[in-house]
Amino acid sequence: MIEQYSGATRLVVILGDPIAQVKAPGGLTREFERRSTDAVVVPMQVRPADIKSVLSAIDRIANIDGIIATIPHKFALAEHCTGLSDRSAFLGVANVARREADGWSGDMLDGEAFVDAILSAGCRLTGEPGLLVGAGGAGSAIGLSLLDRGIGRLAISDIDAGRREALMSKLDRRYGDKIVEGSSDPRGYSLVVNATPLGMSTDDPLPLDSSGLSPTIFVGDVITKPEVTPLLQRARELGCNTQTGVGMFESSVSLMADFFAPSIGASR
Amino acid sequence: MIEQYSGATRLVVILGDPIAQVKAPGGLTREFERRSTDAVVVPMQVRPADIKSVLSAIDRIANIDGIIATIPHKFALAEHCTGLSDRSAFLGVANVARREADGWSGDMLDGEAFVDAILSAGCRLTGEPGLLVGAGGAGSAIGLSLLDRGIGRLAISDIDAGRREALMSKLDRRYGDKIVEGSSDPRGYSLVVNATPLGMSTDDPLPLDSSGLSPTIFVGDVITKPEVTPLLQRARELGCNTQTGVGMFESSVSLMADFFAPSIGASR
Repeated sequence: MIEQYSGATRLVVILGDPIAQVKAPGGLTREFERRSTDAVVVPMQVRPADIKSVLSAIDRIANIDGIIATIPHKFALAEHCTGLSDRSAFLGVANVARREADGWSGDMLDGEAFVDAILSAGCRLTGEPGLLVGAGGAGSAIGLSLLDRGIGRLAISDIDAGRREALMSKLDRRYGDKIVEGSSDPRGYSLVVNATPLGMSTDDPLPLDSSGLSPTIFVGDVITKPEVTPLLQRARELGCNTQTGVGMFESSVSLMADFFAPSIGASR
Repeated sequence: MIEQYSGATRLVVILGDPIAQVKAPGGLTREFERRSTDAVVVPMQVRPADIKSVLSAIDRIANIDGIIATIPHKFALAEHCTGLSDRSAFLGVANVARREADGWSGDMLDGEAFVDAILSAGCRLTGEPGLLVGAGGAGSAIGLSLLDRGIGRLAISDIDAGRREALMSKLDRRYGDKIVEGSSDPRGYSLVVNATPLGMSTDDPLPLDSSGLSPTIFVGDVITKPEVTPLLQRARELGCNTQTGVGMFESSVSLMADFFAPSIGASR
């Protein structure tokens, strides 16, 4: 990529605050290179108070063909879009947007990336019961994608009862009879997902009761650092199949490259 | 660079319209890599009507440590700076600006890059007479730098008499007795510089009367494409030492890397 990088290279920007931790600049730029797409992903650190004016300026920078939003800008990106995918509109957030003739078309790929990753890792989904621990942004996207992709029943758990109820009632509007309240007990599920931040710090408690894990349960985690969280380590010791957050990130790179493909260089 | 490129990579943006032809993204990014500086140069195509709002947004993108301006944004960048080098203030333009605690510090390195390049190529300057053909933006910067660096006398020529007079009277304020009116005849000079666009198209006339060239005249050209212009080709055939626009660009890469060094990552 360094050989061909030039003034003609197209841009996808990733907006976050903080920004230093994001992996997409390297990961997706390498994927563009693998596909012989002359584009790079450019990290931009933007405070919440400035996101609207920066998005407005991005409209005016003609060689920016795509936008990726990470924390805390996924709501703002959805608002800035002139069109949203069904799932993005339902969730009210977008993590990607591509430039089209009449504005920005947004989508929310986080949940899809997670589901792609667990299916690639051999997880059965259709008609199975699953437990989602964590009803924040990542959990909401994953919950919707699990339901969209055929999970049989989804139990939702969160230490914040209000957040759990909010997600349950949101998903209830579309998948009423499949949504139930979950707990920290993974017994009886085919799939258990950690979508909380627990596991990033070494002194975090496990996000669920690992004594209930057994080899028939597939365990997925959204955390990318450490790659193997204490939960996944424990699950592997107990013989469970697992999916790391890094694997989810790798799926998201591929999905994002597919998503941006129609817009790269299209407005040149 | 692709190996370490990440969300922590610092940005220098280059603003132009058009943008596809600019070489700094590749050239200066490679120079940063050579210096083990984790920074990339990002091309941004911005129309003149949008440059103020985009510069204002750049203020708010915390990991942008530097700005490069190319045509037509060198005036706007100078206006946006909170401080300018002496030569940048004198010329009223800036091609580079680095972020400092209280805003942007601008400089104009085009003329310096040209002079560095010809000195490296063995051109004698101190006390010598020179002919500058072309009194536009590039010519103005080169003229000032030639004078700042000790040229003995500077003759200025331009097919647009008003532009020639404007540059002569501007330089006259600082270097009065050294400034004279030139013609297209290179006889009697130690240095002759083409700072016009003539030579970019194959059917352009030569910018000066090549019958007056002789081996004691050093001939420099600002054009980068083709690398060897018809003027330089003719000068070489006649035994002149020459300097291409590509050589000037290579000098500018090194000067820009030096200029940005204090700001890269400083605000992290």
